Amino acid sequence: MQLSQLGEFGLIARLRDLIGAPAAPAVTNGPALLAGIGDDCAVSQYGALTQFATTDTMVQGVHFDVVYAGWHDIGWKALAVNLSDIAAMGGVPDYALITLGLSADTEVEAIDDLYGGLLACAAEFPCALAGGDIVSAPAFFVTVALIGHAVSSVPYPNNALLRSAARPGDAVAVTGTVGLSAAGLALLKSGGEWQPAITAHLRPIPRLATGRLALEAGVRCGMDVSDGLAGDLAKLCGASGVAAEVDLNRVPVHAELPSRFPDAWARLALTGGEDYELLLVAPPEVLDAVAERSAVPVTTLGRIVAGAPGHVTVWDAQGKAIDIGGGWDHLAPSPR
Amino acid sequence: MQLSQLGEFGLIARLRDLIGAPAAPAVTNGPALLAGIGDDCAVSQYGALTQFATTDTMVQGVHFDVVYAGWHDIGWKALAVNLSDIAAMGGVPDYALITLGLSADTEVEAIDDLYGGLLACAAEFPCALAGGDIVSAPAFFVTVALIGHAVSSVPYPNNALLRSAARPGDAVAVTGTVGLSAAGLALLKSGGEWQPAITAHLRPIPRLATGRLALEAGVRCGMDVSDGLAGDLAKLCGASGVAAEVDLNRVPVHAELPSRFPDAWARLALTGGEDYELLLVAPPEVLDAVAERSAVPVTTLGRIVAGAPGHVTVWDAQGKAIDIGGGWDHLAPSPR
Repeated sequence: MQLSQLGEFGLIARLRDLIGAPAAPAVTNGPALLAGIGDDCAVSQYGALTQFATTDTMVQGVHFDVVYAGWHDIGWKALAVNLSDIAAMGGVPDYALITLGLSADTEVEAIDDLYGGLLACAAEFPCALAGGDIVSAPAFFVTVALIGHAVSSVPYPNNALLRSAARPGDAVAVTGTVGLSAAGLALLKSGGEWQPAITAHLRPIPRLATGRLALEAGVRCGMDVSDGLAGDLAKLCGASGVAAEVDLNRVPVHAELPSRFPDAWARLALTGGEDYELLLVAPPEVLDAVAERSAVPVTTLGRIVAGAPGHVTVWDAQGKAIDIGGGWDHLAPSPR
Repeated sequence: MQLSQLGEFGLIARLRDLIGAPAAPAVTNGPALLAGIGDDCAVSQYGALTQFATTDTMVQGVHFDVVYAGWHDIGWKALAVNLSDIAAMGGVPDYALITLGLSADTEVEAIDDLYGGLLACAAEFPCALAGGDIVSAPAFFVTVALIGHAVSSVPYPNNALLRSAARPGDAVAVTGTVGLSAAGLALLKSGGEWQPAITAHLRPIPRLATGRLALEAGVRCGMDVSDGLAGDLAKLCGASGVAAEVDLNRVPVHAELPSRFPDAWARLALTGGEDYELLLVAPPEVLDAVAERSAVPVTTLGRIVAGAPGHVTVWDAQGKAIDIGGGWDHLAPSPR
């Protein structure tokens, strides 16, 4: 069987089963592994330290194209998408390892610019670039592994935002707006111009402050939106054994998105991906408190309900359910 | 300027300068970064915990070829080479993040086998596979990021083996034998057969126990041999500001290596690379104590001297200096 038949999420489930089998090793003399595959970060406990770890890769021609993305942007985004995973746990970042896959004819100045972007992002959202690896590769790629930790001193799991903590009756909110990054990608590919969308795509902002604020306010469930709002909410619901309902007319989008993309705006907002906003799930009054204190808008757009685990229904303004299709599958036979 | 003109080590030095510049961020509310680029692992201090972190990547067609390497072997080696970096610090491994770059037409069974190799290695040298990332990529690659920690409770730097701790008068030793892995690679490429060499290439054994033993015995300087004995010793000497002398007739090689590779054995042993043995540097009597207690042979083959930092002289049996050329440079214009 080829991977395209199994798909990315099928493969992840298969590997989780493989690793979770009784043959899996116990960690001796080391930390307790509290959470492995299945959340935004792996979680390890060293004494009183709850550590978060994540890794994300960007490949030339798959996740970006140097035809439209500057090297500085690529560096920024490579770190920002990992910081977003730490934000999704409500944690703070500590240090990153950077792996570059390069061909020998790469210009040194390109790598200087890439590191300029990495360093700019690491200065804005303080963390250290601690080391890494450089390899020869036929297509350029950059892999970041990022380590962070929980700031709250209460024990795990109450010091982290987990995908598995949604309960019927909770409200669902998202930070910022969704759909803008996917709009930016479409514009970059077609040669169109609209700076807010292009910036959203090239320079995502990890929502670290809001993640921590949400945790402090009592939110226990969250994840970041990387593969599309509807698909990621479905994953969160799957992990929690619940279903969700979303009201399209409450989904926050940039004020100009519907007029600039009259046919596509709803699809971009629901399934566009690479938003790097946070989905937050908690009782309505808790989310209201977060919205009041957050510098970034936090908008309630739906609710958790009992139902088929992982099922998400989106209602349009006329009260009709919308077929949202899937989100981004990295191993699908014909990626967008 | 293209990377091929700068070379891998020139690029690493350039990036170290970039990152070390005053614009580099301070880590707030986080651990102290004790060592970044320049040793086998980055080192962070969280309270009493000294944490090691490393990452290594293997790319199809560059670091291995599925024509001769089985998927199980590739999985084993991907983790083993990272474990070797933890061994080179004298630490213990804790958990790994695994990134796979795959094309959609990869067979699922290949990934099962790859994970079989990863899990076998993680069971033999206990650590957890904690998560990772799966991306679409034009050439298969596997990146492992591995976190470990120092076992000794004495404060850093006395709880780690560092490249920078060599002093004139120290002896230089290596675990096991060198040159066998490069011989195995040559045989795999030419269709030759000699199982010890092929196994050494496909299934390296990280020297975790000997690394810890060396640290306990008082060794403070070490690194692993991945790019070739002479070149890696030169790096260690550069980091310590010293020079070294090596006696070729004391370099430990497999008993059959000279007869099977009569013209190439010395070159294989000195510059072959991918040995994943440990270089240990300490006063002679300390290395003797390590050799006595180690299950793996520990052979003294040279000494640290005052001299041009990073300069390594190899003497042959006739007392003549040998020109050893360089080790492996991942960005050299014509890689071996």
